[in-house]
Parts: sequence; structure tokens; C-alpha cells
Amino acid sequence: MTVIVLNAVLKPLIAARLPAWADVRWYASKEEAFALAPEAEIGWFDMHSKEDMAQVFDLATQLKWLNSVYAGVESFPLDLLRQRGVTLTNGAGINAVPIAEYVVMLMLGHAKNYREVFRAQERHEWLKGMPGVRELHGSEALILGYGEIGQAVEQRLLPFGVTVTKVRRSPGAGVLGPDEWRAALGRFDWIIIAVPATAETEDMIGIAELAAMKPGAVLVNVARGSVIDQDALVAALNESRIGGALLDVTTPEPLPEDHPLWTLDNVQVSMHLSGRGPMDRMFARAAERFLVNLERWHGGEPVAPQVDLARGY
Amino acid sequence: MTVIVLNAVLKPLIAARLPAWADVRWYASKEEAFALAPEAEIGWFDMHSKEDMAQVFDLATQLKWLNSVYAGVESFPLDLLRQRGVTLTNGAGINAVPIAEYVVMLMLGHAKNYREVFRAQERHEWLKGMPGVRELHGSEALILGYGEIGQAVEQRLLPFGVTVTKVRRSPGAGVLGPDEWRAALGRFDWIIIAVPATAETEDMIGIAELAAMKPGAVLVNVARGSVIDQDALVAALNESRIGGALLDVTTPEPLPEDHPLWTLDNVQVSMHLSGRGPMDRMFARAAERFLVNLERWHGGEPVAPQVDLARGY
Repeated sequence: MTVIVLNAVLKPLIAARLPAWADVRWYASKEEAFALAPEAEIGWFDMHSKEDMAQVFDLATQLKWLNSVYAGVESFPLDLLRQRGVTLTNGAGINAVPIAEYVVMLMLGHAKNYREVFRAQERHEWLKGMPGVRELHGSEALILGYGEIGQAVEQRLLPFGVTVTKVRRSPGAGVLGPDEWRAALGRFDWIIIAVPATAETEDMIGIAELAAMKPGAVLVNVARGSVIDQDALVAALNESRIGGALLDVTTPEPLPEDHPLWTLDNVQVSMHLSGRGPMDRMFARAAERFLVNLERWHGGEPVAPQVDLARGY
Repeated sequence: MTVIVLNAVLKPLIAARLPAWADVRWYASKEEAFALAPEAEIGWFDMHSKEDMAQVFDLATQLKWLNSVYAGVESFPLDLLRQRGVTLTNGAGINAVPIAEYVVMLMLGHAKNYREVFRAQERHEWLKGMPGVRELHGSEALILGYGEIGQAVEQRLLPFGVTVTKVRRSPGAGVLGPDEWRAALGRFDWIIIAVPATAETEDMIGIAELAAMKPGAVLVNVARGSVIDQDALVAALNESRIGGALLDVTTPEPLPEDHPLWTLDNVQVSMHLSGRGPMDRMFARAAERFLVNLERWHGGEPVAPQVDLARGY
């Protein structure tokens, strides 16, 4: 029997389908989590407070596999987990569905200038002219970051008649390598960023990349604010050197009330809302993934998605 | 040689690709159209004024095939054309691409309550709670009217994980017959109306249909305002008996400034904008279709899409 420590809120989603070798102990409070942590071989301890998290990991000395629903694991003690040889699976891509839906909405909203339609409705004004007549059809999109989110976006864009190019290491049709995409930037109408937030991706869109974009091209960022040099972006938007920016993420968050991004007409700020699907669905997806991983773990197969504890994603 | 009378604006799109048997005469003003009309065997006379249209058709006594870019042909003298045995091809579905894009935007915008995101941006407020967390994923849509628009909508919704059912005469998977869909109305999250405007489809969504919809279900209308009993709809929306209405079309158009549809929170009025793609693309699509039809006409094959002059679509 393997001791597994889980939050009791997962019980209705998981309990009936647990394997026979699982000795599951449920915690309903942080005190119960602290009490159960020392025996946990497998654990899922997502807590709001960083201090509580740190205390749990101090106590969980038997831990071999730690699961989390979070995609970003900056608040986890990665060095400690690495020293102890703990495997960490995270929630990367768990919100791919709502995020991909949001990306398509932002793109369509920009193409049709939907904001002006809302404003006209508020004024009770029947618009005569079309505020935005761009079509997704026939446009070209570059997807930076071809994980679950990037793939979910691609899948939804293709039937719109969008030509999708993605950046990844393994070559293939419609693929640009990590060293190739910059030279091709001028080709794309949409540049969709869905990379993990790491040292490598920080400021990956800066002055040079913005200058290489074609006029009218639109940046869509559902990754982290830090992947864009935001001051350079504001300058490019101010001078309409690019078509717009659809920013689910910014630096910092929340964006200060007097930040210029709020007021630029070619900018949509969507307040890091894209990943927020219905909570019940997110938990159901995470529980489903955990149950699949339990089987893999028991069979000696790798669990997924695993965080590279050195790289941080 | 067959005399074909065309608007001169089409010249750059068509002239280089005309077949040898075509004796094309171009008009650049309505006076030129009137002068050329009597010899026209094939004609494409779209004019803004109904009176000018009537005058052209009075003169065009040799006409065998009339083409139009318009989808709705209410302003054409259908009885006269029928008496003379004229074939009428119209622009049905010519704007299927922009309309289908608009439909998906409206649905996503409703699901995420995008309007509240715009409003928050105008207030420079970083929303904490999610204004709308519905997903298209896992929802069920009924498409009423399975012409080019209905098909283009279906094609785009499927990869979102939407289960699509369509109403048409020929049976098949995911199909409900014209006499079956009403009994199944309670199943659907989205009811998308893309039928032609005829006597048969007038008020096809009335009190009974609204009552049969499930709470939270959303009507999307890109057909004509007349297909919905609008007073019944306003009552249903006022009492939140359905989830919402996304209305590209209304009765009348423009909607009067004091109409209740403007102010209902669960209504989006989009001012008959959905079909307005880039004008150059619309003309290019219409010209492409006309050239294909010219070949068919010459080969004795049926041109398409043909208007049923008795039914009016």
C-alpha cells in the first residue's frame, strides 16, 4: 500500500475510482494536512498561503511524487524537491480549453472591432458602417509555445481558414525552429504567445521583434507578462507600428490604474481571466489526469506533465 | 456569342478570365445599364434604388439568367422573372465566412461575458472574479438552416467540442427533420438561426419555442428579424427564462432608440454587421462564383445557387 494524501474536496471526483494499492488519507484543513504530510509518499497539497506550503514540504520527508493543479510552480520549493528526488507534476495545460476559447474570442473581437459594437449598443445606436471588417479567414498565425494550449488554439483556428505556423524543436510541416521564427516574423497577422514563463522566454518579444512584425499584426499573450518587453510594446502601440495587442497577462498584475495599456484603442486587457473555466470542470480535468497518472506511477511509467525542477517548468 | 451585361466595377475581377463565347458589355452608370439592358441575355444588375431595378427589368426582355450579389431577393420582381422564365442566381452564402466568424465571436463573447471585460477596461479596473465562465466545450448547438452559413458555423464549432445538430430534410447523423426539432428544443445550449426569410420561416421561434428552450439557452439570429416573434422574445429575456439572445438582425432595422432590446443585459444587438466582410473579398467571392456559373451555363449544367421564384429563396 502506498500512502497518498489528498484534499478532501477531491473525494467525490476520485474516491470511487482509486486503485487497490492506494492508501488514501484525506485532509480537510491545513492542520490535518500538516499531520498527514510526514507519511505521504504521494501528495497533492495546493494551499493559498506560501508559508503553509513551505511547512507542508518541510514535513513531507517521505514524498516521492507531488501533484499540483497550478501551471506556474514559482511558489514551490523546487530546490528542496530536487534534493529529495521528488517528482513534480503540475497543472500545465489543464486550462487549455478555456484559454484556447479565450484566444479565439480575443482575435475575433479584434478583427471585428467588437468593442465599438458594445459601445454603440450602450448608446442605442444602430451602426451603419462596419467598425472592423478583418476576417480570420486567409490570415497567418504564429504560435509560440506548442504545449497543450498552443495545440488547442491551433485546432480551433484551422477551420477558420487560418494558416498556422508553430515554433518547436522537432521539425515538421508548418513548423519553425527556435532559431528560425524571428527571421520570419514579418509574415504573420497574429503572433500568439503561449510559452512557459522561464528565464529563456523573458523579453522574447522586445524592440527587435516588434520592429520585425508587419504593420497591422496583432500580438496575443496568454503566457506571462514577462515574455514581452512591455515598455517597447507600449511605444510600438502608441505609434501604431503594430495592429494591436490582446493581453491576458501584463507586468505587473494587477495593472496599475494609470497604466497606458488601459487606454490604448488597439489594446485589450483581459485581466488574466482566460484560464478561468468553470471550477468544477477544472477540478474534474485535474482529477482525471491524476487518476491516469496513478496508474502510470504504479506501472513504472512516467507521470505527466512533469516539471523540470532545474528549469522551473 | 452571348450578350452579358455587367457592372464595370467587376472588370478587374472578371475581364481576364471570360470565356470566348461571352460578348460582355460593361455599364458604369444607371443610364448605361438602361441602354444595354434590352440586349442582355445574361445580366448582373444590382442597384441601390428599387425603381432603377424595376426599370432595368422592364427593359431586359431578352434576359435568360440574372445574377445578384444579394442574398435576400425581396426587392426583385420575382413574378415577372418567373413569367419570362428567367433563372435567378443570388448571393446566398456569399458572406458565409464573415457571418460564421461573427457567430462564433458572439457565442464566445456571451460565454465569457466579454462585455464586462470591456467595461472593466474602460474603468481601468483589474477584475478579480470571472464575469463569465461558460465554455463552448461540451455544449450542444442546434443549427436551423443548413445552407452555406449553417455549414460554415458547424465547421468552426466542431473543434471547440460543441455537439452540433442541424435541421434539414434529408436524414443523417446529427440531423433533425423539420418536424422533429421543436420536440428536442430543450436539449440545446445554443440555437443558431440561419434560415432564409420566407413565409414559412416567419415567427418560427415564438412563445411555444421559447418556452421549450432550456433555462440558460441562447438564441443566435443571423437570418432575419422576422423569424423570431420579437415581443415574445423580449418577454422571455425580461424574465430571464432563457439565457440570452445574440441578435444580428431585428424587427425593425434600425432598431428604434427606445427599444427594450438595447438595454437588456442578456442581449447583444450587432446591427446586421455580421455579413460585412472586406468588400474586396465579397466581390472577389461573387466574381469567382459567377465565372464558375458561366462555365456551367455554357455546358448546360444548372447554375447555383438558384432562387426558387415561387418560394422566394
